[in-house]
Amino acid sequence: MTYDLTVIGAVESALTDRSDAPRQGDEGAPDAWIVVDDSYTPALDGISVGDRLVVLTWLHLGRRDVLRTHPRSDTSRPEQGVFSTRSPDRPNPIGLHPVTVLAIDGVRLRVAPLEANAGTPVLDIKPAL
Amino acid sequence: MTYDLTVIGAVESALTDRSDAPRQGDEGAPDAWIVVDDSYTPALDGISVGDRLVVLTWLHLGRRDVLRTHPRSDTSRPEQGVFSTRSPDRPNPIGLHPVTVLAIDGVRLRVAPLEANAGTPVLDIKPAL
Repeated sequence: MTYDLTVIGAVESALTDRSDAPRQGDEGAPDAWIVVDDSYTPALDGISVGDRLVVLTWLHLGRRDVLRTHPRSDTSRPEQGVFSTRSPDRPNPIGLHPVTVLAIDGVRLRVAPLEANAGTPVLDIKPAL
Repeated sequence: MTYDLTVIGAVESALTDRSDAPRQGDEGAPDAWIVVDDSYTPALDGISVGDRLVVLTWLHLGRRDVLRTHPRSDTSRPEQGVFSTRSPDRPNPIGLHPVTVLAIDGVRLRVAPLEANAGTPVLDIKPAL
Protein backbone atom coordinates (compact mmCIF):
# COMPACT_ATOMS: atom_id res chain seq x y z
CA MET A 1 0.00 0.00 0.00
CA THR A 2 1.41 3.39 -0.92
CA TYR A 3 0.22 6.98 -0.82
CA ASP A 4 1.28 9.90 -3.01
CA LEU A 5 2.90 12.89 -1.40
CA THR A 6 2.38 16.34 -2.87
CA VAL A 7 5.34 18.69 -2.74
CA ILE A 8 4.12 22.05 -1.37
CA GLY A 9 7.37 23.97 -1.66
CA ALA A 10 11.15 23.81 -1.43
CA VAL A 11 14.10 24.90 0.69
CA GLU A 12 16.34 27.77 -0.43
CA SER A 13 19.61 27.53 1.48
CA ALA A 14 23.34 28.09 1.22
CA LEU A 15 23.72 24.36 1.96
CA THR A 16 24.09 22.52 -1.34
CA ASP A 17 25.74 19.21 -0.50
CA ARG A 18 24.60 16.44 1.82
CA SER A 19 28.08 16.31 3.38
CA ASP A 20 27.89 20.03 4.21
CA ALA A 21 24.66 19.79 6.14
CA PRO A 22 24.87 19.63 9.94
CA ARG A 23 23.29 16.47 11.31
CA GLN A 24 20.75 18.42 13.35
CA GLY A 25 19.43 21.95 13.11
CA ASP A 26 20.94 22.93 16.43
CA GLU A 27 24.45 22.03 15.29
CA GLY A 28 25.27 25.19 13.39
CA ALA A 29 22.61 25.07 10.68
CA PRO A 30 22.04 28.37 8.87
CA ASP A 31 18.95 30.43 8.26
CA ALA A 32 17.08 29.39 5.13
CA TRP A 33 13.95 30.18 3.16
CA ILE A 34 10.94 27.92 2.87
CA VAL A 35 9.39 28.84 -0.48
CA VAL A 36 5.81 27.63 -0.72
CA ASP A 37 4.11 27.18 -4.09
CA ASP A 38 1.70 30.00 -4.88
CA SER A 39 -1.24 27.59 -4.98
CA TYR A 40 -0.88 27.05 -1.21
CA THR A 41 -0.89 30.75 -0.26
CA PRO A 42 -4.22 30.44 1.65
CA ALA A 43 -2.74 27.68 3.82
CA LEU A 44 -0.08 30.05 5.24
CA ASP A 45 -2.59 32.45 6.79
CA GLY A 46 -2.08 32.65 10.54
CA ILE A 47 1.69 32.13 10.56
CA SER A 48 3.53 35.06 12.17
CA VAL A 49 7.12 36.13 12.72
CA GLY A 50 8.36 34.53 15.93
CA ASP A 51 6.18 31.42 15.58
CA ARG A 52 7.79 28.09 16.36
CA LEU A 53 6.95 25.58 13.66
CA VAL A 54 7.86 22.09 12.54
CA VAL A 55 8.75 21.92 8.85
CA LEU A 56 8.38 18.49 7.24
CA THR A 57 10.66 17.79 4.30
CA TRP A 58 11.30 14.89 1.94
CA LEU A 59 14.98 14.04 2.29
CA HIS A 60 15.30 13.15 -1.37
CA LEU A 61 18.97 12.17 -1.07
CA GLY A 62 18.15 9.48 1.52
CA ARG A 63 18.44 5.79 0.68
CA ARG A 64 15.10 4.06 1.23
CA ASP A 65 16.43 0.50 1.36
CA VAL A 66 18.54 0.99 4.51
CA LEU A 67 17.12 -0.54 7.72
CA ARG A 68 20.22 -0.46 9.95
CA THR A 69 22.93 2.17 10.23
CA HIS A 70 25.78 3.42 12.37
CA PRO A 71 24.48 6.31 14.50
CA ARG A 72 25.73 9.61 13.11
CA SER A 73 27.64 7.63 10.44
CA ASP A 74 30.24 6.81 13.13
CA THR A 75 31.46 3.34 12.18
CA SER A 76 33.04 2.89 15.63
CA ARG A 77 29.51 2.68 17.01
CA PRO A 78 27.47 -0.48 16.50
CA GLU A 79 24.73 -0.49 13.90
CA GLN A 80 21.17 0.01 15.10
CA GLY A 81 17.78 0.15 13.46
CA VAL A 82 17.02 3.33 11.54
CA PHE A 83 13.81 3.88 13.55
CA SER A 84 15.97 4.48 16.64
CA THR A 85 18.05 7.09 14.76
CA ARG A 86 17.53 10.30 12.81
CA SER A 87 19.38 9.03 9.76
CA PRO A 88 18.01 10.39 6.45
CA ASP A 89 18.39 6.83 5.16
CA ARG A 90 15.06 5.15 6.06
CA PRO A 91 11.97 3.73 4.32
CA ASN A 92 10.19 7.10 4.21
CA PRO A 93 12.85 9.82 4.43
CA ILE A 94 10.69 12.48 6.04
CA GLY A 95 12.68 15.19 7.84
CA LEU A 96 11.31 17.01 10.90
CA HIS A 97 12.79 20.44 11.45
CA PRO A 98 11.81 22.55 14.47
CA VAL A 99 12.33 26.17 13.40
CA THR A 100 11.49 29.73 14.35
CA VAL A 101 10.02 32.10 11.77
CA LEU A 102 12.37 35.09 11.30
CA ALA A 103 10.57 36.87 8.46
CA ILE A 104 7.67 36.43 6.06
CA ASP A 105 7.66 37.72 2.48
CA GLY A 106 4.53 36.50 0.69
CA VAL A 107 4.92 32.75 0.22
CA ARG A 108 8.49 32.84 1.52
CA LEU A 109 9.23 32.09 5.19
CA ARG A 110 12.70 32.88 6.56
CA VAL A 111 13.37 30.24 9.22
CA ALA A 112 16.21 29.06 11.45
CA PRO A 113 17.86 26.74 12.07
CA LEU A 114 17.42 24.50 9.03
CA GLU A 115 19.89 21.72 8.26
CA ALA A 116 18.25 20.76 4.93
CA ASN A 117 20.01 21.32 1.61
CA ALA A 118 18.88 23.73 -1.09
CA GLY A 119 16.21 22.13 -3.22
CA THR A 120 14.89 19.81 -0.52
CA PRO A 121 11.15 19.33 -1.13
CA VAL A 122 8.81 20.61 1.61
CA LEU A 123 5.75 18.52 2.52
CA ASP A 124 4.05 20.28 5.39
CA ILE A 125 4.30 23.04 7.98
CA LYS A 126 2.75 22.68 11.45
CA PRO A 127 2.80 24.48 14.81
CA ALA A 128 5.64 23.21 17.04
CA LEU A 129 5.02 20.03 19.00
CA MET B 1 6.13 16.32 -8.47
CA THR B 2 5.04 13.55 -6.15
CA TYR B 3 6.76 10.88 -4.10
CA ASP B 4 5.42 7.49 -3.01
CA LEU B 5 5.12 6.72 0.67
CA THR B 6 5.60 3.19 1.93
CA VAL B 7 3.38 2.12 4.81
CA ILE B 8 5.60 0.48 7.45
CA GLY B 9 2.87 -0.55 9.90
CA ALA B 10 -0.46 0.38 11.44
CA VAL B 11 -2.10 1.56 14.65
CA GLU B 12 -4.08 -0.87 16.83
CA SER B 13 -6.29 1.17 19.13
CA ALA B 14 -9.66 1.24 20.87
CA LEU B 15 -10.34 4.46 18.90
CA THR B 16 -12.31 3.56 15.79
CA ASP B 17 -14.02 6.75 14.69
CA ARG B 18 -12.57 10.12 13.76
CA SER B 19 -15.09 11.86 16.00
CA ASP B 20 -13.95 9.76 18.97
CA ALA B 21 -10.30 10.70 18.70
CA PRO B 22 -9.03 13.46 20.98
CA ARG B 23 -7.58 16.38 19.02
CA GLN B 24 -4.15 15.97 20.60
CA GLY B 25 -2.44 13.08 22.33
CA ASP B 26 -2.31 14.92 25.65
CA GLU B 27 -6.10 15.37 25.73
CA GLY B 28 -7.05 11.96 27.03
CA ALA B 29 -5.73 9.73 24.25
CA PRO B 30 -5.37 6.07 25.18
CA ASP B 31 -2.49 3.66 25.00
CA ALA B 32 -2.22 1.94 21.64
CA TRP B 33 -0.07 -0.52 19.71
CA ILE B 34 2.14 0.39 16.78
CA VAL B 35 2.36 -2.83 14.77
CA VAL B 36 5.27 -2.75 12.35
CA ASP B 37 5.39 -5.03 9.30
CA ASP B 38 7.73 -7.97 9.79
CA SER B 39 9.93 -6.83 6.91
CA TYR B 40 11.01 -3.82 8.99
CA THR B 41 12.03 -5.78 12.10
CA PRO B 42 15.74 -4.83 11.71
CA ALA B 43 14.82 -1.13 11.73
CA LEU B 44 13.40 -1.38 15.27
CA ASP B 45 16.68 -2.47 16.87
CA GLY B 46 17.75 0.06 19.49
CA ILE B 47 14.27 1.09 20.65
CA SER B 48 13.75 0.44 24.38
CA VAL B 49 10.92 0.67 26.89
CA GLY B 50 10.81 4.20 28.24
CA ASP B 51 12.10 5.80 25.03
CA ARG B 52 10.40 8.96 23.86
CA LEU B 53 9.64 8.75 20.15
CA VAL B 54 7.79 10.61 17.45
CA VAL B 55 5.49 8.35 15.44
CA LEU B 56 4.59 9.62 11.97
CA THR B 57 1.25 8.49 10.59
CA TRP B 58 -0.77 9.03 7.42
CA LEU B 59 -4.10 10.52 8.54
CA HIS B 60 -6.00 8.70 5.83
CA LEU B 61 -9.35 10.22 6.80
CA GLY B 62 -8.03 13.75 6.22
CA ARG B 63 -9.26 15.83 3.28
CA ARG B 64 -6.32 16.87 1.12
CA ASP B 65 -8.08 19.70 -0.72
CA VAL B 66 -8.62 21.86 2.37
CA LEU B 67 -6.33 24.90 2.70
CA ARG B 68 -8.23 26.90 5.35
CA THR B 69 -10.11 25.70 8.41
CA HIS B 70 -11.61 26.77 11.71
CA PRO B 71 -9.12 25.98 14.47
CA ARG B 72 -10.23 22.89 16.38
CA SER B 73 -13.36 22.78 14.17
CA ASP B 74 -14.76 25.65 16.28
CA THR B 75 -16.83 27.67 13.81
CA SER B 76 -16.96 30.60 16.23
CA ARG B 77 -13.26 31.10 15.53
CA PRO B 78 -12.15 32.66 12.22
CA GLU B 79 -10.71 30.40 9.54
CA GLN B 80 -6.96 30.25 9.21
CA GLY B 81 -4.52 28.46 6.94
CA VAL B 82 -4.05 24.77 7.64
CA PHE B 83 -0.26 25.21 7.95
CA SER B 84 -0.87 27.27 11.11
CA THR B 85 -3.05 24.50 12.59
CA ARG B 86 -2.81 20.80 13.39
CA SER B 87 -5.92 19.93 11.40
CA PRO B 88 -5.77 16.47 9.79
CA ASP B 89 -7.24 18.15 6.69
CA ARG B 90 -4.17 19.40 4.78
CA PRO B 91 -2.33 18.70 1.50
CA ASN B 92 -0.19 15.93 3.03
CA PRO B 93 -2.04 14.60 6.10
CA ILE B 94 1.01 13.44 8.03
CA GLY B 95 0.39 13.11 11.78
CA LEU B 96 3.15 13.68 14.34
CA HIS B 97 2.63 11.87 17.63
CA PRO B 98 5.07 12.29 20.52
CA VAL B 99 4.80 9.08 22.55
CA THR B 100 6.54 7.06 25.24
CA VAL B 101 7.24 3.35 24.71
CA LEU B 102 5.45 1.32 27.40
CA ALA B 103 6.24 -2.19 26.19
CA ILE B 104 7.82 -4.01 23.25
CA ASP B 105 6.61 -7.37 21.94
CA GLY B 106 8.50 -8.28 18.78
CA VAL B 107 7.34 -5.88 16.07
CA ARG B 108 4.64 -4.44 18.35
CA LEU B 109 5.32 -1.28 20.37
CA ARG B 110 2.89 -0.30 23.11
CA VAL B 111 2.88 3.51 23.22
CA ALA B 112 1.02 6.35 24.88
CA PRO B 113 -0.61 8.71 24.35
CA LEU B 114 -1.81 8.14 20.78
CA GLU B 115 -4.82 9.99 19.40
CA ALA B 116 -4.84 8.11 16.05
CA ASN B 117 -7.66 5.74 15.12
CA ALA B 118 -7.30 1.99 14.68
CA GLY B 119 -6.01 1.21 11.21
CA THR B 120 -4.15 4.47 10.74
CA PRO B 121 -1.11 3.75 8.54
CA VAL B 122 2.29 4.33 10.15
CA LEU B 123 5.06 5.92 8.05
CA ASP B 124 8.06 6.35 10.32
CA ILE B 125 9.34 6.21 13.90
CA LYS B 126 12.06 8.57 15.15
CA PRO B 127 13.66 9.61 18.43
CA ALA B 128 11.78 12.53 20.05
CA LEU B 129 12.61 16.02 18.82
